[in-house]
Amino acid sequence: MFDTVAVVGATGAVGTIILDLLEKRNFPAKNFRLLASARSAGKQLQLAGKTITIEELTHDCFEGVDLVIASTPDDTAAEYLPSAVKAGAKVIDESGYWRMNPDVALVVPEINPEAALNAQGIIASPNCSTTQMVLAMKPLHDAGKIRRVIVSTYQATSGAGLQGNIDLQEGTRAALDGADYEYKAFAHPIAFNAIPQIGSHKEQGYTSEEMKMVYETRKILGDETIMVCPTCVRIPVSNCHSESILVETEKPISVDEAKALFAATPGITVVDDLDASSYPMPSNSTSSDEVYIGRIRKDLSNPNGLAFWCVSDNLRKGAATNAVQIAELLARGV
Amino acid sequence: MFDTVAVVGATGAVGTIILDLLEKRNFPAKNFRLLASARSAGKQLQLAGKTITIEELTHDCFEGVDLVIASTPDDTAAEYLPSAVKAGAKVIDESGYWRMNPDVALVVPEINPEAALNAQGIIASPNCSTTQMVLAMKPLHDAGKIRRVIVSTYQATSGAGLQGNIDLQEGTRAALDGADYEYKAFAHPIAFNAIPQIGSHKEQGYTSEEMKMVYETRKILGDETIMVCPTCVRIPVSNCHSESILVETEKPISVDEAKALFAATPGITVVDDLDASSYPMPSNSTSSDEVYIGRIRKDLSNPNGLAFWCVSDNLRKGAATNAVQIAELLARGV
Repeated sequence: MFDTVAVVGATGAVGTIILDLLEKRNFPAKNFRLLASARSAGKQLQLAGKTITIEELTHDCFEGVDLVIASTPDDTAAEYLPSAVKAGAKVIDESGYWRMNPDVALVVPEINPEAALNAQGIIASPNCSTTQMVLAMKPLHDAGKIRRVIVSTYQATSGAGLQGNIDLQEGTRAALDGADYEYKAFAHPIAFNAIPQIGSHKEQGYTSEEMKMVYETRKILGDETIMVCPTCVRIPVSNCHSESILVETEKPISVDEAKALFAATPGITVVDDLDASSYPMPSNSTSSDEVYIGRIRKDLSNPNGLAFWCVSDNLRKGAATNAVQIAELLARGV
Repeated sequence: MFDTVAVVGATGAVGTIILDLLEKRNFPAKNFRLLASARSAGKQLQLAGKTITIEELTHDCFEGVDLVIASTPDDTAAEYLPSAVKAGAKVIDESGYWRMNPDVALVVPEINPEAALNAQGIIASPNCSTTQMVLAMKPLHDAGKIRRVIVSTYQATSGAGLQGNIDLQEGTRAALDGADYEYKAFAHPIAFNAIPQIGSHKEQGYTSEEMKMVYETRKILGDETIMVCPTCVRIPVSNCHSESILVETEKPISVDEAKALFAATPGITVVDDLDASSYPMPSNSTSSDEVYIGRIRKDLSNPNGLAFWCVSDNLRKGAATNAVQIAELLARGV
């Protein structure tokens, strides 16, 4: 139970869903405060039956706040969240800025809740494409020890924020009408296209989004020996990231065993009947907190390999839901 | 040089492009005949400055034909093409029906031209997703011997024929307008979605499209030991298939070496400057006969691995262009 919970970035794509989840899941708090940039300050939002006026995010705004849930750009998180920690608040951060800091816990509650409970400073929520993948990896890693992951992503435009979806919608309409459209969130047209770059060039020809999947996976699973080869691609889907994943385990895992392991993992739902054309897709996975897994099959190229297809709502389990689940974990204290 | 060349399936998505290529590339033939189903018979088309009336495809229609280029559904190819062979014609087939028949040559002219030149019966053109992949594999296989390929595809709706693109266009318009649309070419909505099934369930949880990438690759490269693990996915792109490919070679290949090998291969164009956001995409690869390769980088999970991104026009090099190139090879005779 927290007295005062502050949501930073309350008007963003993820912030909006965080508010929705706090209300729907009856998050145990006496007061909520909403913080955002000066541009949004003064506006009012409804939360848990109350009208709340958005306050401007400043270094001094965290006085009396017990828990901060922040979803902001990296530079905002870098600048303001240390002030929240200094003011004595527990801080859950959605941004990418703090995740790999050795003093910061990087948490998926189903995987490493103890990291959140023991955290002294900021608790980071992973990158959306990492979260769904590590949740799928966890039961396989426990059962057969994952040595290697090869992943190709099919990522939604909502991962680029509200402007990403505006670009998809308006760009697509323009393309259908043969009109021009100037994209703001993407370097190339996303309508009827596939863009094999998310983030900037980070190292060795890999993008920042791809290297997140390498480093965050190791930190969350607590195993620096897991090798990851990622390819991150933006496709014209508005919401839900899809991932084609191949894992190699020390001990081979059969398809039946994998299905049973996935089905027994909280947060995972198996949808897998190819003969009935039944598998996860963005169209049947959106607005859900689950990670959906299908197309589970033996790797045809390696006896220790297992291939599957994984879809999840990147704004929910990939972002807002994971943050709220961390908050619930802190509120329970166990 | 051929006297009479017949194009079967002249009105289809691929057939239309075959006619265009024959004209633009000044294919050496005295006469062209156009064959199609009874529904299209009697219609007229322009080809090489002449008006040609479409004739109905029958078992007896191949009399006097020297070369047949056919792009039809599998069952049509199964029924009629043996009659063309019997009538003494050379036959190039785009369908999937004959490819894996041991008496049939499966040809990508840059890779195994001798198979076409030595063929006694039908010469098959590979599946579109296979063609661009094997062309990319060939120089790497020659240099370092490929042992294993892991590929995830991002396939365009034009691969499902004219109706595939109608579905994408009309389904997308309906989705933007909040209206209903009944898809004809796809089991699920393709607008703003990703469908991880192309073809039917073939074996071991893999689809027919995926197994084509396994078996056709081995046959074209003449190496039954190459292991392939494919995942084929339809995305809302109208034309050009994209592929996230990872190869493992016996002898490691560096990024610089791979770039040089790709650049020296006829039919391949390297587009690879991540810092300048330059890489192949459907939007910059359509209506070209090339296979475009970018995002070339070392596999982070295996010293013998190399990852890259490959895009090509599935109706051109993936279908029509490859068939016409085989025809040109037969006409040259070397």
